[in-house]
Amino acid sequence: MSKLVIVGTVAFDAIETPFGKTDKILGGAATFIGLAASQCNADGAIVSVVGGDFPEEYIALLKNHDLDVSGLEVIKEGKTFFWSGKYHNDMNTRDTLVTELNVLENFDPKVPENYQDAEVVMLGNLHPAVQLGVIEQMKAPKLVVLDTMNFWMDHTLDLLKEVISKVDVITINDEEARQLTGEYSLVTASKKIMEMGPAYVVIKKGEHGALLFHKDEIFFAPALPLEEVFDPTGAGDTFAGGFAGYLAKSGDFSFENMKNAIIYGSALASFCVEKFGTERLVGLSKKEVHKRLQQFQQLTQFDIELE
Amino acid sequence: MSKLVIVGTVAFDAIETPFGKTDKILGGAATFIGLAASQCNADGAIVSVVGGDFPEEYIALLKNHDLDVSGLEVIKEGKTFFWSGKYHNDMNTRDTLVTELNVLENFDPKVPENYQDAEVVMLGNLHPAVQLGVIEQMKAPKLVVLDTMNFWMDHTLDLLKEVISKVDVITINDEEARQLTGEYSLVTASKKIMEMGPAYVVIKKGEHGALLFHKDEIFFAPALPLEEVFDPTGAGDTFAGGFAGYLAKSGDFSFENMKNAIIYGSALASFCVEKFGTERLVGLSKKEVHKRLQQFQQLTQFDIELE
Repeated sequence: MSKLVIVGTVAFDAIETPFGKTDKILGGAATFIGLAASQCNADGAIVSVVGGDFPEEYIALLKNHDLDVSGLEVIKEGKTFFWSGKYHNDMNTRDTLVTELNVLENFDPKVPENYQDAEVVMLGNLHPAVQLGVIEQMKAPKLVVLDTMNFWMDHTLDLLKEVISKVDVITINDEEARQLTGEYSLVTASKKIMEMGPAYVVIKKGEHGALLFHKDEIFFAPALPLEEVFDPTGAGDTFAGGFAGYLAKSGDFSFENMKNAIIYGSALASFCVEKFGTERLVGLSKKEVHKRLQQFQQLTQFDIELE
Repeated sequence: MSKLVIVGTVAFDAIETPFGKTDKILGGAATFIGLAASQCNADGAIVSVVGGDFPEEYIALLKNHDLDVSGLEVIKEGKTFFWSGKYHNDMNTRDTLVTELNVLENFDPKVPENYQDAEVVMLGNLHPAVQLGVIEQMKAPKLVVLDTMNFWMDHTLDLLKEVISKVDVITINDEEARQLTGEYSLVTASKKIMEMGPAYVVIKKGEHGALLFHKDEIFFAPALPLEEVFDPTGAGDTFAGGFAGYLAKSGDFSFENMKNAIIYGSALASFCVEKFGTERLVGLSKKEVHKRLQQFQQLTQFDIELE
């Protein structure tokens, strides 16, 4: 088993969907990534920052999921990052209502010493300067996975490109891949992104699944068709966490095993959207995950006879 | 091997895409369905109508693909159905420029006597009254597959619903499934459609693949990710033709074999869009299809170890 360093936000979210709304609940990219990675018993450490207003019980929750939190800085006099958003009826688009950076504004990440030799690094979505800071603290990572979004393309493109040049895998959604490359075809876009650095490109298409590209090879994982998506918040992070966690746990970073990691991430993401925030991921049982993976097999595996 | 009756348009198409435009070329739902079905050596017969302006060489082309054309009526004094369309830059939407029904207006389909005992019927997209006329001529079909579109929902909904109540499989695109049922979720929509008659519902999502529903089971086939879609005309018909042809050839109408049929149809559709009209399907070799099916295996098959 490989160690896994997770950097990203640990935050409060307030969410409104057609099904209801929440007060401030536990959220943040590193939270979803960590909870997902814990499902496959990866040895994960969270590198992030929260304020004095962050409840002890949330930290206990992360610890209970076997996540190392010695790299989770608590700034007593500061306030925790807060995001609030409202989803439209189609659940594919949302408006951000509030973004309060708070302690995140001057975040200087510190990777715990006993995780600086980790083989796998998962850079969750936040400022590219922070992601870069984490990469620089790692001794000899074998697999660095980057998640990012259009906000950083709009505001800190040069810095983001520097991060992209240093990672092995990038996960990005379809519109962002098009924005980053100016190419409509995702096949062409993925090739351009590979030229920027990453040997592996994962393009997330939400309800339309995810594509994994490597050299001339392509793998596709569908999203599980659902009667109802309750809250999409954190689904992309959960996918990335399941992906990185699966790879860290197995220690096999081949393209063939990445296929399994993509399916694992997709399975966990399909749970995430069933309830608000982290509610469905917390205490998710191995048996439930096992059954969901079987559903993915049923959904995608066939046995055509090639003459 | 089962016999396959194919009803649908045999037509002239004039197509404009960002890559170029054509004069009147061979088109029509039954044409694409027939060419696709011929790939798997199904014993197919085309039931359709053309005018005196329809070239002998096109009829010879269908015959050369082992299609029975004794049910292809030629009305000497009439003109062949003509459709002209222009695709937008994203290739997902198009404007119809011209629709001339011509001989199709009073089409009274006649299934050749030696195909009235066929096990499989593929009702290509055209007026529901014609589709109904074909169903009534069949003695004891084991599998009736229906393809249709929103035009008939808008104009002849009651008649279309009568056809839907009599078929085993319906293929329909995602927006049409939503229009027909008033449901946004495709899972919920498929359940409502199954209540209308068909035991199997295939929802086509274009570049996002296709879903097969039966009772509580779901299968998903992706579209092959392509650098460039040259001309989408006929892709849906080719998919349906590959699907019905595969089932007719194998004589196995189980859900598990329908998975293979969906993959087969998807593979043929991925060829169709590479050139204008039927150009890529004509003379497509078994070897090419075999290689494409292997690509679909690479694209979708994984080997995750379930603990």
